[in-house]
Amino acid sequence: MRILVDAMGGDNAPDEIIKGCLEALNTSQDFEIELLGNKSEIERCLGSDNAAKSRITITETYDEITNCDKPTEAIKKKTDSAIVTGMKKVKDQTAQVFISAGSTGALLAGSLLVAGRMKGVVRPALAPIVPSKKGQAMIIDAGMNTQIKPVNYLQFGIMGTEYMKSVYNIKIPRVGLINVGTEESKGHDAVKQAYEILSKSKLNFVGNIEGRDLTEGKVDVVVCDGFTGNAMLKVMEGTG
Amino acid sequence: MRILVDAMGGDNAPDEIIKGCLEALNTSQDFEIELLGNKSEIERCLGSDNAAKSRITITETYDEITNCDKPTEAIKKKTDSAIVTGMKKVKDQTAQVFISAGSTGALLAGSLLVAGRMKGVVRPALAPIVPSKKGQAMIIDAGMNTQIKPVNYLQFGIMGTEYMKSVYNIKIPRVGLINVGTEESKGHDAVKQAYEILSKSKLNFVGNIEGRDLTEGKVDVVVCDGFTGNAMLKVMEGTG
Repeated sequence: MRILVDAMGGDNAPDEIIKGCLEALNTSQDFEIELLGNKSEIERCLGSDNAAKSRITITETYDEITNCDKPTEAIKKKTDSAIVTGMKKVKDQTAQVFISAGSTGALLAGSLLVAGRMKGVVRPALAPIVPSKKGQAMIIDAGMNTQIKPVNYLQFGIMGTEYMKSVYNIKIPRVGLINVGTEESKGHDAVKQAYEILSKSKLNFVGNIEGRDLTEGKVDVVVCDGFTGNAMLKVMEGTG
Repeated sequence: MRILVDAMGGDNAPDEIIKGCLEALNTSQDFEIELLGNKSEIERCLGSDNAAKSRITITETYDEITNCDKPTEAIKKKTDSAIVTGMKKVKDQTAQVFISAGSTGALLAGSLLVAGRMKGVVRPALAPIVPSKKGQAMIIDAGMNTQIKPVNYLQFGIMGTEYMKSVYNIKIPRVGLINVGTEESKGHDAVKQAYEILSKSKLNFVGNIEGRDLTEGKVDVVVCDGFTGNAMLKVMEGTG
């Protein structure tokens, strides 16, 4: 498996990004990494770990997309950036995975405009895995879509379920809907409708949950709008 | 100052509620407590702390409002409940404060229908104080209003500011707006409009904040819709 990594995006890039790549290569043997970004900076960070380096290639990119760029504009104009290059390679299947800690907005725009969506996926979502007392849970969406329709909750539930099945080997992932209380009647209109849709779905929907159920490990997939998910995730970062 | 306490509402009531009252009476001298609820149960819990008991009176109530009751209906029908009795006494000024850990919905309905709003308060809000690295911060709203208008964020900011000034002696409380990022352009429509309204207000508005800024102590008042605030609060309970 070939994994593309945007060496230039995120806090303390490229140093921390490349440290992580080397650690990953030393932990598991069944993949190689293609680093995208400024070649001389990348080579400086790679240092002398020759065993790991033998499974790394570098593709130089010259444009840089920052958090200040307007996402869609940046994707259209900065075509020699790590993000656009990465998305293109996923699209033409020369790589299987693209990882970037760069601009969330540009990644959303790039995934839609360049890589394209899988059939059935209406909206891309941010889906971080967070620790719980019984292992881990996925929060989906955690910031990609600040306003969503009731049916999107179902979509997120399906995507999360498939991920937890295939990556964490959980046979029947439990899906919970974030709400202000566990009773069916709780919450605003969109979330009430989402409850109904999820109840009728084939997912293993366990009902409304609250933030503490996430950390207690009552569910494997937490569905919510991206505004709420992002707020929860960042509170966890602050308190965790 | 006379403080009314609903002895019957909340988890492990009346035992835990009354334990808290006795502790408060032993900590500070300048108030008395009127407990509302089932007299024999309350007397059992009060035990033998005669010093504290001398500043306690009991008003017996016979109806009970539970979390399963429909809030507005309960307030109208269960007029001899602790919640309705407490709200009436605040309204006729025979007490200055009413504290209850009972049904949130019934407390909202009771505060609107029985106690009445102060001039200028459009919507009541839940406003818990949470610990931060530099002291504490108020989350407002934390669950009373799941859908709000942009102007409500300003209202919450004003209420929170006045509270932090008078109760915590913070001269110029810093107010932050929860968003998915700190940039002005972030978030959904309501929160973008709220940013504009708060920017033009007389509040000490420090801009958009994220969950971790709350725990870091960057603000004294965190304004948000009740859905987001509730999710954040409950995640804090789970991780904190």
